[in-house]
This record gives sequence, C-alpha cells and structure tokens, in this order.
Amino acid sequence: MPRIALLIEYDGKKFHGSQLQVGVRTVQSELEAAIAVLAKRDVRVTLSGRTDTGVHAWGQVAHVDWPDDDVDTWRLANSLNGIMKKDIAVRTAQIVPDAFHARFSAKSRQYVYRILNRRHRSALLKDTHYFVPQPLDLKAMQDATAGLLGNHDFSSFRSTNADNSSTVCTVFRSELLSLGEGQLEFWITADHFVYNMVRIIVGTVVEIGLGKRHPNCVEQALQTSNRDLCGPTAPPWGLTLISVGYGDEYNLFADDSFKTKA
Amino acid sequence: MPRIALLIEYDGKKFHGSQLQVGVRTVQSELEAAIAVLAKRDVRVTLSGRTDTGVHAWGQVAHVDWPDDDVDTWRLANSLNGIMKKDIAVRTAQIVPDAFHARFSAKSRQYVYRILNRRHRSALLKDTHYFVPQPLDLKAMQDATAGLLGNHDFSSFRSTNADNSSTVCTVFRSELLSLGEGQLEFWITADHFVYNMVRIIVGTVVEIGLGKRHPNCVEQALQTSNRDLCGPTAPPWGLTLISVGYGDEYNLFADDSFKTKA
Repeated sequence: MPRIALLIEYDGKKFHGSQLQVGVRTVQSELEAAIAVLAKRDVRVTLSGRTDTGVHAWGQVAHVDWPDDDVDTWRLANSLNGIMKKDIAVRTAQIVPDAFHARFSAKSRQYVYRILNRRHRSALLKDTHYFVPQPLDLKAMQDATAGLLGNHDFSSFRSTNADNSSTVCTVFRSELLSLGEGQLEFWITADHFVYNMVRIIVGTVVEIGLGKRHPNCVEQALQTSNRDLCGPTAPPWGLTLISVGYGDEYNLFADDSFKTKA
Repeated sequence: MPRIALLIEYDGKKFHGSQLQVGVRTVQSELEAAIAVLAKRDVRVTLSGRTDTGVHAWGQVAHVDWPDDDVDTWRLANSLNGIMKKDIAVRTAQIVPDAFHARFSAKSRQYVYRILNRRHRSALLKDTHYFVPQPLDLKAMQDATAGLLGNHDFSSFRSTNADNSSTVCTVFRSELLSLGEGQLEFWITADHFVYNMVRIIVGTVVEIGLGKRHPNCVEQALQTSNRDLCGPTAPPWGLTLISVGYGDEYNLFADDSFKTKA
C-alpha cells in the first residue's frame, strides 16, 4: 500500500469546506468518491488542514494509502481529474515515504487574501477578491501587518467556535502588497493558523485602513488576547491556501509544471 | 446631451460577444438595456471595438450621449452596476468632449492571452487560461513573438470571415512572459487588430512551442500573407482586452482606483 501525496486545487464556491460532512459536498468527499471509483473500495483521504466554505486552494495537500502496489501517479491524477467536477483538480500525485502525513508532517502553510479597493464593483474579480469601495490607508495597513511577524499568541484572532489547538503561532511572512489598479494582496505564512485567523486579521486590517481602528490595535490584540480588539471576519472568497510546506526531505511536487526551456 | 465614456469590465463566458445581435445576450445589449432603465428611453452605446464570444474585458471602453444634462457619473456607474448582472460592470464613467469617439478616437488596444502549461488541468484557471498539457519551448515562442513588433501586414493572421479594414497593423508591444508554475502571458499592444489576430498568433506560437512548426513561420507568414503558415485559432477564454489607449488629451479614467496613500 504505497502512500501517495496529492497536490489539490479547488474553487471554494460550491464546496461546504474541505472536511467530510454528512449530506453536503466537501473537498474530502469529492476526492474520496473519485478515488473509490478507481480503487473499487473506500479509501480515506487525509488533508493538511481544513479550509472553510468558500475558501479556495491553489496548493492544498492530501495523502492516501493506495490499495494497489502498482500505481502510475500521472495516470492516477489524470483519472481523478476525469472523474471529478471541473472546480476541483489534482495538480500532481507523488509516491511518498510511509512516514509522510499531510497534516502532521506540515511545517508551514501559506495563504493569500485578495482585496479589490476601487470605486465600483468588478465582474472578473468578484469571486476571488473582497471588494472594499472606500479609500484605504495602505501605509497604516502595512504597518499593522508587519507587526504580526514572529511568535505571538493569536487567541484574539480566533473564532469563538474554535478547537483546542495551540494559539501560539510563528509567522514567517506577513506582507501587504499593492499590485496597482486597486488590487491588494495580503500574503501570510505561518507554522499553523488558529480558526479563521487570516480572515479576522484581514477584517481588522481593513478597518485600520478605513480609519475605524487605530493601527496599534493589532499589537494590542496580540498582547491582551481580547477578541473585541479585532475587526469582523472578512469574507471567505478572498482567501486562497497557496501552499503547504514540508521541508526538503520530502522534495514534494517538484515536477508539477514542466521544466520550460528558457 | 453630454457624451460619457464608460470603462467596462466583463467575463466573456455568458456573452455572445460584444456587438448587438438579435435574440442573444451581448455586452452592448446588456449595457443598452440597463441604460434604458435609467434614461427612460433608448440610448445607443458605441464600443471601442468588438470582442468575440467568450473573450473577456478588463478595460473595454464605450461612449453614450446621455439625454440629461445633469448627470452624476459616480451615481450613473453605481446605478448601472445595480441593474446589470454580476458578470459585467462599469468600472468608471467620465464626461468627455463631444469629439471623443470610443472607436475612432482609439489609438491602441492592449490584450493579454493567458496559457497554463502544466501536466494536469486547473480548477481555478479553467475559465481564464488556455490549458496546454505538453512541454513548450518557451525560448522559441519568445523569439517568434518578438518578430511581431513594428509594422506588418497581418492578413495571414486573419479569420476568413473578416471585414474589410486594413490588415496593416503597428505592434507596439509583443511579449511572452513566464510567471512561474506553468503560467504564461502573451501581452500585445497595437494600433488596431484584424479579426481573430491575437488568437491566431497564440495558436501559431503554441504550435512553435510544441515543435510542430518552425519558429520562423511567423516571419514567413508576415511576409507572404499565407493563412496556411499559421496555426489554429486559440480558444477565446484565454483572451482579455486589457485597455484601450486614447492619448493624453482625453486623460481618461485617471480616478478608477483610489489614490492609495503609500
């Protein structure tokens, strides 16, 4: 039973999040249903972590223990993509050591949250960007996001219906970029995230940008663990899980795209 | 009757192109229907040029002669966006001199054509990128696209059902960029385009990248006006009209996004 890691991409719009739930379409249920067709038996899929309803993934990672020793990973990915609907895709599949675990071997997760800040709504970016039609103070927002770097207790940035995992996270990257024409991207990488953390950070930082909150409220929230110091949870469709990091020993998904001659 | 220029964005998927046609939904018909609600009479919309079924626009330009002298452009754009479906939007509206004409005043058009070159299909980019699952020789493609710069007769790169406009175009920019993870963008700006020109260029250049055609076939096609030297027409959903240039005298759409403090 070789263990296989899958690099998964999905448009979160029509999924009730990533984790298996009875009676609704989720990323896990879609993958397990497609794998069952090929494997001719039920096979459990383990994801690196949950994404909520409406949240997208460019590089979610899963692992499965494939019941047949003889497996062609290109053909497996291709067959799964033939079975699954168009809003979910296996980017690549790779045989990994049995010690690999999509969730427990993960050392970091990288997200981007996209904002569109202009006067009028967008037709092309409506499903991937949070639309903010009031002027934003980018400098104040960038100062606030820079303060997230390093080790902090993020319990202020956690939804109340949270699980019991550690609220102390190490943030490796926290950067708000302006791409022009009103397009902003907040990139954050951390060892792990508490529930709704990125969306609460963005909700808070947008309120700072609108002048509704003082720029130091992020720093205060990190120090005092007070959810009231944070803003609302920003909408899910702006958020995309970009990648999950596992360290060099697994050399995962190196051949996702072609080595283009250049 | 003030003349108003509109900056228009649309997702081409559910439009039968841009120009008015009986019995189908087009960009022009959607705009004219929404404007008729506000103006309480029929008002003709003139676009900078046509886009085909399935082609997107980030910055299409139109003009209308508004029947009421007293017009608030912010409110006009906002009201049109409230009436129209979510896959089309007015980014901004601006009063322009009567001499302005969306089509005849245009000095250049800029398009991007997006390609996804990797092993397996995408969930997030399926409606905006042409998926090519075989390795491409990027260098050969870049050499071919660079040869398009300047003044050329593009009659080889024209669909047979073409109109009678001039086939000599001046290309100001022709650049194939690799953004990583298999994402390629072909940017082209020219004074005007012949029918299906960008999509035939891309179809040809992809066949060069696949090794099916010699890199110099583009140069030969420009010299000999032979449609057989060109490849197939690439699919419409990879193509987006980015902007239309009118020269500095109109100073169009300068305040589309906010002047973000940075």
